[in-house]
Amino acid sequence: MKLSKLVGERLKDVPSGATLRSHIYLLRAGYIKQVSAGIFTLMPPAQRVNLKIQNIIREEMNAVGGQEVLFPVVMPRELWDLSGRYSSIKDEMVRFKDRTQHDMLLGMTHEEAAVHMALNTIKSYDQLPFMVYQIQTKFRDEARPRGGLIRAREFTMKDAYSFHATQEDLAAYYQKVFDAYMRIFKRIGFKKFVAVEGDNGMMGGKVSHEFMAVTDAGEDKLVICKSCGYSSNMEVAVSVKDENDGTVLGEITEVFTGNAHTIDEVCAFLETDAKHTAKAVCYKTDDGRLVVAFLRGDHDVNEAKLQKIARSELSPVDVEEFGLCAGNIGCINLNVPGDSVVAFDKSLQGLENFITGANKKDFHLKNVSASRDLAGVEFVDIALVKEGEKCVHCGAELSFTRGIEIGNIFQLGTRYTKQMGMKVTMPDGTAKEAVMGCYGIGVGRSLESIIEEKADDKGLIWPMSIAPWQVHFCPLRLDDENVGVLAEELYREMEKAGIEVLFDDRNLSAGIKLTDSELMGIPIRVLISPKTIVNGQAEVTIRETGEKLFINFADLISELKEMIRGDLEELN
Amino acid sequence: MKLSKLVGERLKDVPSGATLRSHIYLLRAGYIKQVSAGIFTLMPPAQRVNLKIQNIIREEMNAVGGQEVLFPVVMPRELWDLSGRYSSIKDEMVRFKDRTQHDMLLGMTHEEAAVHMALNTIKSYDQLPFMVYQIQTKFRDEARPRGGLIRAREFTMKDAYSFHATQEDLAAYYQKVFDAYMRIFKRIGFKKFVAVEGDNGMMGGKVSHEFMAVTDAGEDKLVICKSCGYSSNMEVAVSVKDENDGTVLGEITEVFTGNAHTIDEVCAFLETDAKHTAKAVCYKTDDGRLVVAFLRGDHDVNEAKLQKIARSELSPVDVEEFGLCAGNIGCINLNVPGDSVVAFDKSLQGLENFITGANKKDFHLKNVSASRDLAGVEFVDIALVKEGEKCVHCGAELSFTRGIEIGNIFQLGTRYTKQMGMKVTMPDGTAKEAVMGCYGIGVGRSLESIIEEKADDKGLIWPMSIAPWQVHFCPLRLDDENVGVLAEELYREMEKAGIEVLFDDRNLSAGIKLTDSELMGIPIRVLISPKTIVNGQAEVTIRETGEKLFINFADLISELKEMIRGDLEELN
Repeated sequence: MKLSKLVGERLKDVPSGATLRSHIYLLRAGYIKQVSAGIFTLMPPAQRVNLKIQNIIREEMNAVGGQEVLFPVVMPRELWDLSGRYSSIKDEMVRFKDRTQHDMLLGMTHEEAAVHMALNTIKSYDQLPFMVYQIQTKFRDEARPRGGLIRAREFTMKDAYSFHATQEDLAAYYQKVFDAYMRIFKRIGFKKFVAVEGDNGMMGGKVSHEFMAVTDAGEDKLVICKSCGYSSNMEVAVSVKDENDGTVLGEITEVFTGNAHTIDEVCAFLETDAKHTAKAVCYKTDDGRLVVAFLRGDHDVNEAKLQKIARSELSPVDVEEFGLCAGNIGCINLNVPGDSVVAFDKSLQGLENFITGANKKDFHLKNVSASRDLAGVEFVDIALVKEGEKCVHCGAELSFTRGIEIGNIFQLGTRYTKQMGMKVTMPDGTAKEAVMGCYGIGVGRSLESIIEEKADDKGLIWPMSIAPWQVHFCPLRLDDENVGVLAEELYREMEKAGIEVLFDDRNLSAGIKLTDSELMGIPIRVLISPKTIVNGQAEVTIRETGEKLFINFADLISELKEMIRGDLEELN
Repeated sequence: MKLSKLVGERLKDVPSGATLRSHIYLLRAGYIKQVSAGIFTLMPPAQRVNLKIQNIIREEMNAVGGQEVLFPVVMPRELWDLSGRYSSIKDEMVRFKDRTQHDMLLGMTHEEAAVHMALNTIKSYDQLPFMVYQIQTKFRDEARPRGGLIRAREFTMKDAYSFHATQEDLAAYYQKVFDAYMRIFKRIGFKKFVAVEGDNGMMGGKVSHEFMAVTDAGEDKLVICKSCGYSSNMEVAVSVKDENDGTVLGEITEVFTGNAHTIDEVCAFLETDAKHTAKAVCYKTDDGRLVVAFLRGDHDVNEAKLQKIARSELSPVDVEEFGLCAGNIGCINLNVPGDSVVAFDKSLQGLENFITGANKKDFHLKNVSASRDLAGVEFVDIALVKEGEKCVHCGAELSFTRGIEIGNIFQLGTRYTKQMGMKVTMPDGTAKEAVMGCYGIGVGRSLESIIEEKADDKGLIWPMSIAPWQVHFCPLRLDDENVGVLAEELYREMEKAGIEVLFDDRNLSAGIKLTDSELMGIPIRVLISPKTIVNGQAEVTIRETGEKLFINFADLISELKEMIRGDLEELN
């Protein structure tokens, strides 16, 4: 490919509206162009990367027995009414009426389509297990598209669905896909990524993992144990909390605390530490019930976990409406409606002599004791993990990082097959719902996340496996006849040797050409100029390391092929 | 791939609602499954064919310098307001409001997106020409989806857009793409296809061609000259009409014709031939104007041509509303509103002594003469070509056939670049709109049209180049130990040799297995059984011809590879 004919331009300035480094470089290097909020055209270089990532995914999905299919983007409402998702998914799903006024939608995932395909097609256990996958454009009407392809509204996704006769078979296959995902992300070039235990969100089911590109630019907070490798999304992370002191001091005493309402204010007023307090955090459920969560004062609520206990989304509440005294709510003598959810965090287990609200304006209680006053309470895990807490697996200190979700896998169980009536005949003649797993990878997100991991202050850096071209051929002084003739000859030779080469055939200054090559991020740059020709050599620069080599023209092609082969092998 | 694990089933019965042979076989052989009217899931075998067709297209598009991109499926209204197509395209385009109540649409083609990409990116003539293409899922809300993938609402399409500094450059490049299309359809395996001059429809512009798979199942009527190769869509076809007799007989005479209103009735009443009459056919334009078309009585109106003259869609009209006398309209003393369109077909040129309506109830005129009574009239081409008329190029007889449109190419000119303000600086410093071409191929239509060409009464027949698998391996009596062991061994060997093989590993009767293999249409079937093993041979059957070969096991792999190579080469 000649750069003079490549569609797209390299920009010097940071485009307005872009803040994420990867997004900025994709725009500046001519890889993407925004059409609308969260909607992009992939220009030729990005589409080349896109196709290479797709092929890696395809190979690994095929290697675990995946059968590629193509489900429809547009589906009829009826199919999604069966699963209940037509109504449970809100504004992020696009709905429209077709010309016959029939309700249609744009599929965000394809569990329903997969079950539809299997319905009446797969009838017996001996047709199981199988896995189908597709690579397809999807549209989700994100409320806040951001970061280019990281959180786009339209994106390329690989989604896969497996069907099994038993949960055991699903669990075994799930592990195979887990391993395939590890290979996929390694082959794409990720060095910093983790698989974390995930929250299932709208998918239902139980076991799940999220594959996270680890980067400060990530939206997700991750909890990681560097010692044993435990890693988890903050929403479901667990930890060993500090143990509480175990001595009961004395009688519960009411103390005046006046305007001190927050934990900090109360601690300051009573000259104590938040570790010696129990705070209340209140919410309202979708159906208007009160939720009161008690935690040790130095902990914060993990809303994802609390939502599961309350079986509802949670929203802010005005506690006065429920007759409670804001700022003075406590776990002794709490008077709430019978349908309220009251949850006690494990951080309160064994806590003695602590302070809590008196459920009475301007007063708190002292010397409350978990063992004595909360006897019979079932403590649950509703607090966020704190950095420095201990790993439940190995006891080492946990640390925090951030990540971008680039893939996820779920053990769905029978949620969809039950709702859609997809049964198979078992060996004993009974009919049983098939057990499903589902497996997603964001292709565009992977493309952009690898930039977050690898780019430097000069521009993009592509791993060889997904680079739009392998070699950026950059002759300087093309007006010089020697350079011009040799450049064309080398370009032809590289193409003939099967090297994917971008030839900067523009007669521009060295400054512009080198800056462009760094911005575009192709792994190997080959430079020739009147000077290098005198020495009979090309200057070869590795984009990632900056390492420079001088290679004799006679050896250039074979050396390049060897470098490319080596890079690809390392990633494989 | 083992057939026992292939998702999909083979059906004996013709599925309800399917009438087209290709559609029936795709359903019966487990290639597609309908999700909604005109919306299908491509099961694994169809997706394999789909990907192979895509790769052929990709290679040929790259060979003419195409750069692959990916435009968005969902676009904002503003972009399509610029071209005027947001309002000009009617119900077939899906529109919806996003969560911010912004008008969005699903792109049916991507001229607007291509110009958007080029806007501010391509600034100078020396960045031209270039061509970008994409392979993408599209949705058109067809009023009457039919024939499976032939007229689906959701389908895979390759669309391409080229940009040029001059019309001459476009014309030269257009020819290159034309040639690439001929190669693509040949490589896909079409033997019966033609490129016909097309009607431009909603695309605007002038020169265009449609690539038609020739088949009786086609929706389009084609006019073909077997002598010089002239071929055209009926809508724009031209021909040499029979010449008219040139002697003026006498005075115009009013004759009573009573209830004889149609041409047939009038001819019977006056004992003459339709060739000696001029009939009137009337329509109404979108803005309510009257259109009267006069043709020789034995010709029919070509509505596509008449629409261009009337610059409007045409709908039926009640002529009495315009004061005309239905059944007696004629070209002499016609009294119509001033804004009416009155057109005279070339078939009336030189026609003498003819009969036409008297514009008076129950009467016609005799002895009307074109040379005398229609002097000054400009005759235009508004009649359909009739079979047997002469080719305008070589004078040979024209014949009719039918076709399915599998591709089309258009010289768009500056329609879109003008409306969207996409200019480039020319060598002389002036700014000029870029000149565009656009080029489409229906991937799903191609997949199904090739079935129409090749299938027989037993099932599908795939060309080697796009076959889901190259070899259908069909061992009989798998319960026989010799067969079982050898089958597994041969399967492994074929896979190892890079042969794409579908292994029917089911222990079913020969009848079922052979019927399934014929239905599925894989080009080469390899059969082993206790009987062939005794002879040390496999029975190899060519699906298309039914030809049978017996090949020694020792030579089987190399012979199969040779057969596959030969087939692929023939198509290349």
